[in-house]
Amino acid sequence: MSAASEARSGRGKIAAMSDEVVDSNPYSRLMALKRMGIVEDYEQIRRKTVAIVGIGGVGSVAAEMLTRCGIGKLILFDYDKVELANMNRLFFQPDQAGLSKVDAASSTLSFINPDVVIETHNMNITLMDKFELFLERLQKGSLSGDQPVDLVLSCVDNFEARMAINKGCNELNHIWIESGVSENAVSGHIQTIIPGETACFGCAPPLVVASQIDERTLKREGVCAASLPTTMGIVAGMLVQNTLKHLLCFGRVSMYVGYSALEDFFPTWEIRPNEQCEDRHCLLRQREFRAHPVSRKRDFLKKDDAATSGPTVHEDDFGIELVSETAPADLTDDTQVSKGLRTEYAATSTHSGELDSGDAVEDAGESLEDLMARMKKM
Amino acid sequence: MSAASEARSGRGKIAAMSDEVVDSNPYSRLMALKRMGIVEDYEQIRRKTVAIVGIGGVGSVAAEMLTRCGIGKLILFDYDKVELANMNRLFFQPDQAGLSKVDAASSTLSFINPDVVIETHNMNITLMDKFELFLERLQKGSLSGDQPVDLVLSCVDNFEARMAINKGCNELNHIWIESGVSENAVSGHIQTIIPGETACFGCAPPLVVASQIDERTLKREGVCAASLPTTMGIVAGMLVQNTLKHLLCFGRVSMYVGYSALEDFFPTWEIRPNEQCEDRHCLLRQREFRAHPVSRKRDFLKKDDAATSGPTVHEDDFGIELVSETAPADLTDDTQVSKGLRTEYAATSTHSGELDSGDAVEDAGESLEDLMARMKKM
Repeated sequence: MSAASEARSGRGKIAAMSDEVVDSNPYSRLMALKRMGIVEDYEQIRRKTVAIVGIGGVGSVAAEMLTRCGIGKLILFDYDKVELANMNRLFFQPDQAGLSKVDAASSTLSFINPDVVIETHNMNITLMDKFELFLERLQKGSLSGDQPVDLVLSCVDNFEARMAINKGCNELNHIWIESGVSENAVSGHIQTIIPGETACFGCAPPLVVASQIDERTLKREGVCAASLPTTMGIVAGMLVQNTLKHLLCFGRVSMYVGYSALEDFFPTWEIRPNEQCEDRHCLLRQREFRAHPVSRKRDFLKKDDAATSGPTVHEDDFGIELVSETAPADLTDDTQVSKGLRTEYAATSTHSGELDSGDAVEDAGESLEDLMARMKKM
Repeated sequence: MSAASEARSGRGKIAAMSDEVVDSNPYSRLMALKRMGIVEDYEQIRRKTVAIVGIGGVGSVAAEMLTRCGIGKLILFDYDKVELANMNRLFFQPDQAGLSKVDAASSTLSFINPDVVIETHNMNITLMDKFELFLERLQKGSLSGDQPVDLVLSCVDNFEARMAINKGCNELNHIWIESGVSENAVSGHIQTIIPGETACFGCAPPLVVASQIDERTLKREGVCAASLPTTMGIVAGMLVQNTLKHLLCFGRVSMYVGYSALEDFFPTWEIRPNEQCEDRHCLLRQREFRAHPVSRKRDFLKKDDAATSGPTVHEDDFGIELVSETAPADLTDDTQVSKGLRTEYAATSTHSGELDSGDAVEDAGESLEDLMARMKKM
């Protein structure tokens, strides 16, 4: 089956990105970001490497988006196979059922854009020996073969894998972006983690200790999580948009964006690190950051760029001049821990008609420490 | 080339949706929405028909999402061809360059899910004779062949096509959802239009009269609009998510959601109809709605569903019980016209570092009428 699909003729490699506006140029609409005043140096994307852990409903779409954007290199980690049961999400096609997700993804991505270098690892990073290889690839995975990858994206579906990525990135002092979609398919989030500067995944774990229920457990019991291509596509889009902002230096990289599909509500906030975090490398990174508090957050909206000749005026899709405007500060700059935790694990009960908050996380104004203390009593 | 791609073996048709949790069931993760308490009757999606106008970066992804969700029927309208220059967005693949967008889409969508009926129209709906056929298909396009389609999605890239859809839907009294992405690729929106009840596309046109610049004009001049698979994927995701909420009766269908990528800002609001709208069918629908003010908005969050046995408790992606919660009312229920208009056409100037609002739409508290009056003076 894969042979048949590989028999299709794609396009040849392209040595250098061009901004020429011709129908045959797959990069013209991306290079236009320079003329539009959004990105200063789009071509640098060809020198960047992104590692993606989990090539499921979010990870595969994230990989396709980065591939179509012309990323230099992708390193894909997964140990699962494609199934027909995955066909309700974007990316994989029915003839790929039975293939490993990384092989199927690699074949499709290379066909879409042969300029991207794809490295695949069909393995479970939570296994001890595989974890070492995982760390090695994060450290040496760049195109040159001796530098770290530029960013790590977590698109996994279970707590254990998130904790493994967290442990690795704390140890290596590596920035990563975590993503997730709820089992009822109608909410999701992305969270940027900067070791020592923001909460790590272990600093602010789920409000109730994880019960180790993952998709495999659910399937054994004859049930499965719900999923939707919409929610997963939106989460992948937010994940890669922030990846592009981070890699290509534009806009503001969000520390957290939630998505509640039932109401189209997208909360944004930031969580500070927990001084009682149980990950010793997190504590080490926190001490380093306190000693040298140089932020690694990427906020190019604040930058006073002297090299620019003046305010940029863009045109919208109707051919109309736009005025510059910023979002309300209280929506994007909310650093209240309690509000953040209150909303992150929220879901709305559709059929009951009742929209009460649960009592466990009801009160505004609680600190992270209060919440952690309450969790421990559960 | 398309013959080679059709030679791939997909899956056979499936007579009825099943919730059986086996790897070979492409609908198991969707049917799980019932058990999760999100959707009461998922199978009804098989009886629904959606018309999509514009099969580009947003429309093609919207079509794929609906196809993977198992929609009954799609009617696709476009008159463009696939080009390599489209490869920076999701969906089309390099071997489809040269094919009409509707044919290429139909082939891929049928391969992904042969259960979906796909009807294609390779034509420009803004041409007078084609517009009549377009109206006829909206009126008779259902699976039974004698009923209207269930929803119309606008995914076009120019003002003229939007005005044609608007005219048709006002005349037919048809609900539609409009979508758009800015030419600088970093903002977008969706807007639900209910004739007579909300502003139509002609009620609240762009703040400055459209200068008729579309992609074709730009290309002739050797420039092109920028685009990103991220922004288009997010807009398509929001569009189809609201389509699913509308068709399957869950959550709250948003009247407007904006997306500003630079800051991850998603404004939501609603615009009332303009009593001076120049579309006579809009004025007729407004009179009808005033005479019989029965709302067609779909807000299933408010419904007091007596048939439900009690509050539903969901589990999130970590296997944790979630508490129900709603978004702040002031974020999702904002009906202030002036605030809406102030934000809709916002863009952020990246390189200038200046974030001033333009003076034309600066002041809060202006009415739609004030703004329209100011526009006319421009």
